[in-house]
Amino acid sequence: MRLCVCRTLADVFEAIRSLRVRGAPAIGLAAAYGVVLGLQDSCAGDTQQFARSLDQVIDYLGSSRPTAINLFWALERLRSCARQRLATDPPVDVHAALLREATAMHAEDRAICHAIGRQGAALLRDGMGVLTHCNAGGLAASEYGTALAVIYAAQDAGKHLTVYADETRPLLQGARLTTWELRQRGVDTTLICDSMAAQVMREGRVQAVITGADRIAANGDVANKIGTYGVAVLAQAHRLPFYVAAPSSTFDLTLSGGEQIPIEQRGEEEVRSGLGRQIAPDDVKIYNPAFDVTPARLVTALITERGVISPVNATEIRRVLDTPADPAE
Amino acid sequence: MRLCVCRTLADVFEAIRSLRVRGAPAIGLAAAYGVVLGLQDSCAGDTQQFARSLDQVIDYLGSSRPTAINLFWALERLRSCARQRLATDPPVDVHAALLREATAMHAEDRAICHAIGRQGAALLRDGMGVLTHCNAGGLAASEYGTALAVIYAAQDAGKHLTVYADETRPLLQGARLTTWELRQRGVDTTLICDSMAAQVMREGRVQAVITGADRIAANGDVANKIGTYGVAVLAQAHRLPFYVAAPSSTFDLTLSGGEQIPIEQRGEEEVRSGLGRQIAPDDVKIYNPAFDVTPARLVTALITERGVISPVNATEIRRVLDTPADPAE
Repeated sequence: MRLCVCRTLADVFEAIRSLRVRGAPAIGLAAAYGVVLGLQDSCAGDTQQFARSLDQVIDYLGSSRPTAINLFWALERLRSCARQRLATDPPVDVHAALLREATAMHAEDRAICHAIGRQGAALLRDGMGVLTHCNAGGLAASEYGTALAVIYAAQDAGKHLTVYADETRPLLQGARLTTWELRQRGVDTTLICDSMAAQVMREGRVQAVITGADRIAANGDVANKIGTYGVAVLAQAHRLPFYVAAPSSTFDLTLSGGEQIPIEQRGEEEVRSGLGRQIAPDDVKIYNPAFDVTPARLVTALITERGVISPVNATEIRRVLDTPADPAE
Repeated sequence: MRLCVCRTLADVFEAIRSLRVRGAPAIGLAAAYGVVLGLQDSCAGDTQQFARSLDQVIDYLGSSRPTAINLFWALERLRSCARQRLATDPPVDVHAALLREATAMHAEDRAICHAIGRQGAALLRDGMGVLTHCNAGGLAASEYGTALAVIYAAQDAGKHLTVYADETRPLLQGARLTTWELRQRGVDTTLICDSMAAQVMREGRVQAVITGADRIAANGDVANKIGTYGVAVLAQAHRLPFYVAAPSSTFDLTLSGGEQIPIEQRGEEEVRSGLGRQIAPDDVKIYNPAFDVTPARLVTALITERGVISPVNATEIRRVLDTPADPAE
């Protein structure tokens, strides 16, 4: 495990763009700290200059990746925090307030991840096999993560689970991150290639699927790592529940349906030679969408820190998101 | 492209075991030539010695891989050829006859591949997008291959097709072989990761799926490269036809259903570090079935050199396989 230390705004932008930081909640937090870093040289200037820099820094970080809504959510929260204070406070104090806000968001995310775990743990029974895709653990969020938080919380409650992790081509977050994280916490983990998920289901090795999300529309359509939609179709064909775990900041209620979520297209080289070795001829075209959208009808339940949303529809989503946060944290 | 030259029986065994030769028809032909190589030192001995060596060589090659029926079909054909002649001919003449038989099988396979192409070409319309999984082209059989033969024959008939090739983890036959082959023949080819097939279907980029087969049971259940079953489920969910192209030698009518087909389990290292770089921690378990079985109900049609079998059931399979071979070859 190699640490990626970011000392400048450009470092943070590049870390997000190149997926050194990935996972929707983690991207949001990195961007929040990125705003603080990006404004450190603007504290000496006047309020107008600081306000201009604020907008520049936020717009710049907002252009790093298009799909995860948490990025924009975090940036807008900092923008709003700064604007309120700029009316009365000098830039140096506003900057200090932004750091406190980012730190608070980090602590909140940690608490939210634990709450997601508690909310979802009841859905997993002792002895279950669980399939997950990509990485929605502590390397995608804070500490417990989202999808993996549910597994950790079930395990903390004394349930023994067997987890099958899709390797998640092209960038292998499942093989590189999820297996490592699960092993750190002593979870019985088996790695498979993405193409093996159907067979693992057919053989009765898993009884549920759980993933994270990068953005969820008002109707419950879920944008997540490419391959999620296929796994959801397979889960339905095998009559397995398909769960999505995400904080309420992942919901984008301004979008009525998943067709409005922008899907990031990434470079050919991630597929052609993303594994350190070229695997296909130079002249072959490559299609590399980084995300797909799983329609709400394939999602058995959305697990949030506010509660479990099931059935998944606009009314239930509104109802649960309007619930006050879990009082245990 | 690196040639793999086999000069001994052990070379052939190792080439099959390690997948340097792969694809059901190609495995059968390699084994046939392997029998000839394996018996070249037995020609000087007596008939009894030659017969003993014959059985030893055939049993040895038969243990190289368990799933592709063409391997056993080819070996039994040579055994039967040798036994008939050993009653009257000296070993040296029997050996020469075995070489003629292997050469004849090779020529037949070439003709069969062309016939499969002709039989299946009518199923593909001009302008169609076609998804394929693994490699069932000339690098899996003779010249035209099986699944790709249908694409080549449709193209020869003036139809323009767009092919999406699954990369086919863990060994990437789709990325390494299928894309190369299709480009050699000027077919418009796009490589995707296996996890993208569902999205490609959802976006309406393909209108049909076509794969090869390693063994087909009497009821039409199809054993093929791992991932095929998942693609078949996805095709059904998107109402796309799912075609399987294979010579009649791929049918194993002694097995009533796919649950009786032995599925080869391969080593962990193919997944953990099959791409030249370790992608998962040492202590993570890996599940690596090399094949899966697609139930007949998901297969729209079986395309053979004797004709197209549809609907796919035991009666139709018997009827078409009893048809005399296509007279055009």
